[in-house]
Amino acid sequence: MNVPAPSPAQVFDWLDVAAEKRAAAGLSRRLRPRTAASRELDLAGNDYLGLARDKRVAGAAAAAALRWGAGATGSRLTTGSTELHTELEYELARFCGAQAALVFPSGFTANLGAVTALSGTESAIVSDKHIHASLIEGCRLSRTDVAAINHVDPAAVEHALATRRKPRALVVTDSVFSIEGDLAPLRELSQVCRKHGAALLVDDAHGFGVLGDGGRGAVHAAGLAGEPDVVTTITLSHSLGAQGGAVLGPRRVIRHLAETARSFVSGTGLAPAGAAAALAALGVLKSEPGLPEKVLTHAMTLANGLRAAGFRVSSPEAAIVSVQAPSAEAAAEWGARCAEQGVLVGCFQPPSVPDGVSRLRLTARADLAESDVDTAVKVISESAPAGAAS
Amino acid sequence: MNVPAPSPAQVFDWLDVAAEKRAAAGLSRRLRPRTAASRELDLAGNDYLGLARDKRVAGAAAAAALRWGAGATGSRLTTGSTELHTELEYELARFCGAQAALVFPSGFTANLGAVTALSGTESAIVSDKHIHASLIEGCRLSRTDVAAINHVDPAAVEHALATRRKPRALVVTDSVFSIEGDLAPLRELSQVCRKHGAALLVDDAHGFGVLGDGGRGAVHAAGLAGEPDVVTTITLSHSLGAQGGAVLGPRRVIRHLAETARSFVSGTGLAPAGAAAALAALGVLKSEPGLPEKVLTHAMTLANGLRAAGFRVSSPEAAIVSVQAPSAEAAAEWGARCAEQGVLVGCFQPPSVPDGVSRLRLTARADLAESDVDTAVKVISESAPAGAAS
Ligand SMILES: Cc1ncc(COP(=O)(O)O)c(C=O)c1O
Ligand SMILES: Cc1ncc(COP(=O)(O)O)c(C=O)c1O
Repeated sequence: MNVPAPSPAQVFDWLDVAAEKRAAAGLSRRLRPRTAASRELDLAGNDYLGLARDKRVAGAAAAAALRWGAGATGSRLTTGSTELHTELEYELARFCGAQAALVFPSGFTANLGAVTALSGTESAIVSDKHIHASLIEGCRLSRTDVAAINHVDPAAVEHALATRRKPRALVVTDSVFSIEGDLAPLRELSQVCRKHGAALLVDDAHGFGVLGDGGRGAVHAAGLAGEPDVVTTITLSHSLGAQGGAVLGPRRVIRHLAETARSFVSGTGLAPAGAAAALAALGVLKSEPGLPEKVLTHAMTLANGLRAAGFRVSSPEAAIVSVQAPSAEAAAEWGARCAEQGVLVGCFQPPSVPDGVSRLRLTARADLAESDVDTAVKVISESAPAGAAS
Repeated sequence: MNVPAPSPAQVFDWLDVAAEKRAAAGLSRRLRPRTAASRELDLAGNDYLGLARDKRVAGAAAAAALRWGAGATGSRLTTGSTELHTELEYELARFCGAQAALVFPSGFTANLGAVTALSGTESAIVSDKHIHASLIEGCRLSRTDVAAINHVDPAAVEHALATRRKPRALVVTDSVFSIEGDLAPLRELSQVCRKHGAALLVDDAHGFGVLGDGGRGAVHAAGLAGEPDVVTTITLSHSLGAQGGAVLGPRRVIRHLAETARSFVSGTGLAPAGAAAALAALGVLKSEPGLPEKVLTHAMTLANGLRAAGFRVSSPEAAIVSVQAPSAEAAAEWGARCAEQGVLVGCFQPPSVPDGVSRLRLTARADLAESDVDTAVKVISESAPAGAAS
């Protein structure tokens, strides 16, 4: 380079330029810490079953911290595996109908591990364009051909599989897409995979606990849970109200991940409190199999109310309700005004929206009261920016 | 492809082939869950200050789970930020002498976020070859030129910076390398960075809590903590005995990461229990500034004892002691025999060793007794395979 080197104080000047650009486009974001006493109506989180603050779940986390310690102390392959982890893996696999499971410190790292360890240079990856960021990162890490296919288009997936240049293939999809809340056609994708000898990897982060028999998830609902060519990832931080992630699948897949997935091998194991909380939440879900249905009902009521008020609202297939905003700025303002009225909603703008449409993202929870849903519809409607209702 | 598609049951046959190859090379690994009552002498974990099971730390985790819930319930940008996170960020930054800090759900995701958000297509990356797996993944995700330089070679870093084809540059290193336990020449690297207008990113996972004034880490010890062109990552899962990771640096860097780092934006925040445990552990470290010194003393005694017994042992610069094994199989056997005698040691083989040398990796802890160190030397010596001692 022939230009003089920037001074140390100038090295990160480009970050200010980037921040100004975000601000000008209405894309600035801020951390707003909540208090423990916060009484806001939360339609922004992913605690679908309302279990994060359930006494049985939080109590199990607390007891585990006291009994096992605050951290796992090492990789799962050294000191980081406790009997709690093993028990959770056994129970998750059994509940979901998979042969085996492996618990990661987050859903994010579970996805990284599953995609990278199950692809490789001999395996093409064919993914839906709208998959979660962690799957996209996994695909990028895989050093192989990645075809990102139009959203929900099994015919295009089939074409990509048929014309691939690698002997193996891995098809990657969300079950419930995290922003729009729509479903992947899992049965069709599985058929296409089978026709072309591909494996299917499904991120069921937003299906597990909400869809399927007793909340067993979208993969179970599609009849694919125990199949030898299907692998599922879930997060413990949504329906189970905890922290962590897991991969469910054939025993040899789980073993391969435990021995080779970088995000498993080279990171500290999930803290005991997270594992215990997830285990307790799974117990609650088993003992109250009607919880998932409540989530779906509330999501539907919320969507119907907002649609009746004239907004462009998705037809919810799980907990997620998507409401289109006229612009990124309008979405941000809308969300902020709802928050001022005590209703927390997710606000998504580029680059976090795969289709470029800024929107509010609302999530239903099993523990919402009917009056909560009414309040939400009222506040969201009254806070709407010009152009939001049609 | 003209070959017939494999049946569903055959799709993952390649994993068995891979498993057989690992087994044949002595590289199989197994999960060995520990019990809560386990009384083994642990020289394999990274709980350097012995705080994971400290009552103050575990108690804080338990209290936080009960008060805040078992999980963060969403991304830090939606519902996942609590006052606990903010307090922890403030205290970490203050303790380490940085302007600001950002807490991630793991050290792994903190590294992914820092490397990707601070590089980009306009920025070359120059890294030490032996950096941690999570930094390597971050480099791979960065879609830019990455030069992986010989281990601990500032002159080669300088050459790479001088001949780069990108306007910006990011130099990436561990402070204490996680397998060998040796130090990066941080001051020299910083000088080289400044000469060439590059930013310096240091992963202080194994320095924080062990090196520097009162455990403020290797970056602080090098006088680089508050510098405008230096960014530090740490994990909360080693010296602080908890779970999670953090990035420390100039305020504008932290803001940029909070708004753009994918592993921050698109993942659930650290569980309250993890944040509270880290905060409590930081309090213990502040009130007992002599803890780090104990780690170093025990590491030295351990290394001296094993060297006296004839093994090829590193000169520990922090908590990590590396003992070379004659082969991958020998390392595995050595580790297994130590475990049978109640001494847990890390056992590292290709591909987890950057220099290809299989070894035992021992870690010292502040709460070891002198008799523990004696026992360790005795058991490791007696369990040694042929060819380990010179
Ligand atoms: C579809 C999907 N997959 C994976 C993740 C990541 O899981 P975690 O938050 O546990 O890291 C998320 C987000 O939180 C998600 O929405
Ligand atoms: C040098 C280094 N950086 C980062 C990490 C990852 O941190 P965490 O285990 O908190 O994910 C580790 C491993 O545990 C490490 O050794």
